[in-house]
Amino acid sequence: MSGARAAMEGVFAGDRRELSELEIAPQAALADEVRALIEAVIHTEVPETELREAAAAVAALTERLNTARRNRPPAARLGVNGMVKALGSPVTGVLNAIAPPIDVVTLEDGSVHAEFTLTDVYEGPPTFVHGGVSALILDHVLGAAAAANGTPGMTATLDLRYRRPTPHGVPLVVTARTVRNEGRKTWADATITGPDGRVTIEATAMFIFPAT
Amino acid sequence: MSGARAAMEGVFAGDRRELSELEIAPQAALADEVRALIEAVIHTEVPETELREAAAAVAALTERLNTARRNRPPAARLGVNGMVKALGSPVTGVLNAIAPPIDVVTLEDGSVHAEFTLTDVYEGPPTFVHGGVSALILDHVLGAAAAANGTPGMTATLDLRYRRPTPHGVPLVVTARTVRNEGRKTWADATITGPDGRVTIEATAMFIFPAT
Repeated sequence: MSGARAAMEGVFAGDRRELSELEIAPQAALADEVRALIEAVIHTEVPETELREAAAAVAALTERLNTARRNRPPAARLGVNGMVKALGSPVTGVLNAIAPPIDVVTLEDGSVHAEFTLTDVYEGPPTFVHGGVSALILDHVLGAAAAANGTPGMTATLDLRYRRPTPHGVPLVVTARTVRNEGRKTWADATITGPDGRVTIEATAMFIFPAT
Repeated sequence: MSGARAAMEGVFAGDRRELSELEIAPQAALADEVRALIEAVIHTEVPETELREAAAAVAALTERLNTARRNRPPAARLGVNGMVKALGSPVTGVLNAIAPPIDVVTLEDGSVHAEFTLTDVYEGPPTFVHGGVSALILDHVLGAAAAANGTPGMTATLDLRYRRPTPHGVPLVVTARTVRNEGRKTWADATITGPDGRVTIEATAMFIFPAT
């Protein structure tokens, strides 16, 4: 697990060039526009010629953005506690257009919390969030809860119980908290709750900080 | 669970306007270009003025695509068995730029299988796939295995054991198979295997076909 250990230390020591919240605002705004584009590409019914023109326009934009680029996704110190955040995270990354992105906050009691709404870009069965997307979000906030406890780690086990379907297009709440720590192992629990206040999914995970 | 039942039946009865593989090719090509754009937005270091110009250009494209749009993500009959596929799926959807997309095939022995490579858009710890992204993919192929068995359902439980980190940027294999069925319940197992042939994650899930 030495590769994993090095990777974990990379995250927490912040080996990447760091950016401030202000510095990344224009790039985050661009990622937001790309989120809207992703949604439009799924739903559009414009004629084939327009699809081809749009594809060429996107390719030209990509080429322009790639004229100056870093090798690694950037990190930044963001928020009140100044924790290093991976700006390219597929869950919370403000620069990653595949991320909703979810804004995870640490509460006074040590739990972590996020309110979010997902579009049908994240759909599984019609009108519901893909069960795997919920798993992605739960894994992430469970890891954030372990880190908020000062005991970060890599996911070792993740167990999910789906109580009822999770709807998209409505406000959802995800919360997680560390429940136990033994040496390099940390256990955390989490739930997703729908707008009616009922829990849709319960999850528990165990994280291990990699051995030397 | 009547809402869930209706949703499942919506998937399998194909209540959406269907498109052929040929018809969707230009739109799928546009989604591919958007995948490259997502990656470029994360890594770019172009000046702020260029970021703002790019954001405006993306917004204009989105507006153009939205001049003609369907309300629901489209479905299509694709592949040799002609199964209805959700083209907007966040895992396999060729029109959804957040999907890698993964091409899940059903083998003669009834198992399902996909080979894929993920970029750092799906990164968790540096150089590794986000554990939740792996959970997303595993949930999806487990569901595909249950469906391939003729016993589809909504995810009821999903349990993952992470044996070692899953690297991105290298070829990965995911396989799943149905192991048991009892009435409306179906159990399936899955693994992700790295390029060295070692299993990185084992998963098991139980699916329930919603009651009337």
